[in-house]
Amino acid sequence: MQTRTTSVTVLGLGLMGAALAEALLRDGHTVTVWNRSAAKAAPLVAKGAVQAPDAGAAIAASPLVVVCLSVYANAEEILASDALAGRTVVQLTSGAPDQARAMAGLVTGRGARYLDGGIMAVPQMIGGPGALILYSGDEDAFTRHKDVLAAFGEARHVGADPGLAPLLDFALLDAMYGMYAGVYHAIALARSGGVTASESTPMITDWLAAMMHAFPEQARALDAGEFGTDVSSVATSQIAFPTLIETSVRQGVDPAPLLPMRDLLDRAVADGHGADGLHRLIPLLETGKG
Amino acid sequence: MQTRTTSVTVLGLGLMGAALAEALLRDGHTVTVWNRSAAKAAPLVAKGAVQAPDAGAAIAASPLVVVCLSVYANAEEILASDALAGRTVVQLTSGAPDQARAMAGLVTGRGARYLDGGIMAVPQMIGGPGALILYSGDEDAFTRHKDVLAAFGEARHVGADPGLAPLLDFALLDAMYGMYAGVYHAIALARSGGVTASESTPMITDWLAAMMHAFPEQARALDAGEFGTDVSSVATSQIAFPTLIETSVRQGVDPAPLLPMRDLLDRAVADGHGADGLHRLIPLLETGKG
Repeated sequence: MQTRTTSVTVLGLGLMGAALAEALLRDGHTVTVWNRSAAKAAPLVAKGAVQAPDAGAAIAASPLVVVCLSVYANAEEILASDALAGRTVVQLTSGAPDQARAMAGLVTGRGARYLDGGIMAVPQMIGGPGALILYSGDEDAFTRHKDVLAAFGEARHVGADPGLAPLLDFALLDAMYGMYAGVYHAIALARSGGVTASESTPMITDWLAAMMHAFPEQARALDAGEFGTDVSSVATSQIAFPTLIETSVRQGVDPAPLLPMRDLLDRAVADGHGADGLHRLIPLLETGKG
Repeated sequence: MQTRTTSVTVLGLGLMGAALAEALLRDGHTVTVWNRSAAKAAPLVAKGAVQAPDAGAAIAASPLVVVCLSVYANAEEILASDALAGRTVVQLTSGAPDQARAMAGLVTGRGARYLDGGIMAVPQMIGGPGALILYSGDEDAFTRHKDVLAAFGEARHVGADPGLAPLLDFALLDAMYGMYAGVYHAIALARSGGVTASESTPMITDWLAAMMHAFPEQARALDAGEFGTDVSSVATSQIAFPTLIETSVRQGVDPAPLLPMRDLLDRAVADGHGADGLHRLIPLLETGKG
């Protein structure tokens, strides 16, 4: 895949930063690394990385600067460097959309191009087939560097607004934690009946994989402003919830993971949306920016 | 698949009951139907079903009696029939585990065999490849009738306790509603940044399908009483939540679907489980039967 090697700098060598630097080394790039506590660079130097004496020197070493720090605020301090001009900064530190936009302003104000990224993977997945990294910001910079960024995993540009990648990153995390809460509750409920987690989990994941097929049609309908259904209505689900919650309590399992959905369904029915499809709940979550 | 035809009775002809009767007719069985409001039988009679004049006559007509009523309580009244002796009752009315156990007592007390079932499908899916029906109760009866029950979809016996199928049915629904809450929140968050549901949904479902691969190992570890992790700790997730919630609020999206997971993570950290894997949250949900 890689047609030519490039010089790349990686600032920040925590678990994720180190995984990013290793992936670049594996792809044959010249990699300059820097970390506030310098000892973390040693394993990477052993694999061929060059350790810079300070952040400024690290930035000066490469046209492409990848930033992956533990805390977003540290990036502002580290990137306040005159060496930035003419370079491309790829900010992969996890942060909020507003932080990404502020950082884009700071970086472009110093004459550099800016990409913000959301890493949809744990460090162990970096460079492997399942890793997805969302990028937003300067599209020209993305096009120029996407072959190098492919070292980390699938590189996808989602828009020019630098805040978009972190926003979608958070959206995916929110979806994941919702699924986790549901699955953990399901495993606990099955255990209350003597069914082990290893027995219930394949059933649960097969079922969720099947139920996921409903989302594309729900998304299409939502985008089209259509809320009818011939499959499963808000009212059908709303009627089921008291028994689901009562059974959870009776089985000695905390029903808390069920309550946000119960509340949404109750609100939808109270608002007269009982006959609509479940995707009617999505706009109910949209309270509007304060 | 079907080697011989059988006489089957279906009591209750709502959307689901009618779908069950149709699936049996498609498989070539002799199907007797009954419904409190008799008019609902007409479309099935047109397809070859025999309409019984009352519930007792319907029960007397077949060795296998499938029950699918809108409300569980009605089943007690309808099955209080002397004709029950020697038959097998398959109760597919959605109900709680305790109701299934009580119904099993009533039915076996009248000399019949009892299976309770949880239908993991909407009526449109009955008889199709994606439909799964969980059965619990009399295993001999299941073995004897599973070829007939295959008309509805994949037939899986999950245990002798009649309450198990409804319990697992509820567990799967709980997992689904958790996933729905997470996905709906994610779609709303993406929309707050101008990303349509049709754009965000494939990203969300691909991501969830990838994240699902974590559950089998978590289940194995939970069953083994192992709580360590080298992938993603409770503390790592717990630290992320305030920013996830703040971003949701700032984007005008109700953060409610995130709160049960936030509370669980906070509790796990407070209890000293910060370094454990996320599956440590499962026993935290198990409050114990009151």
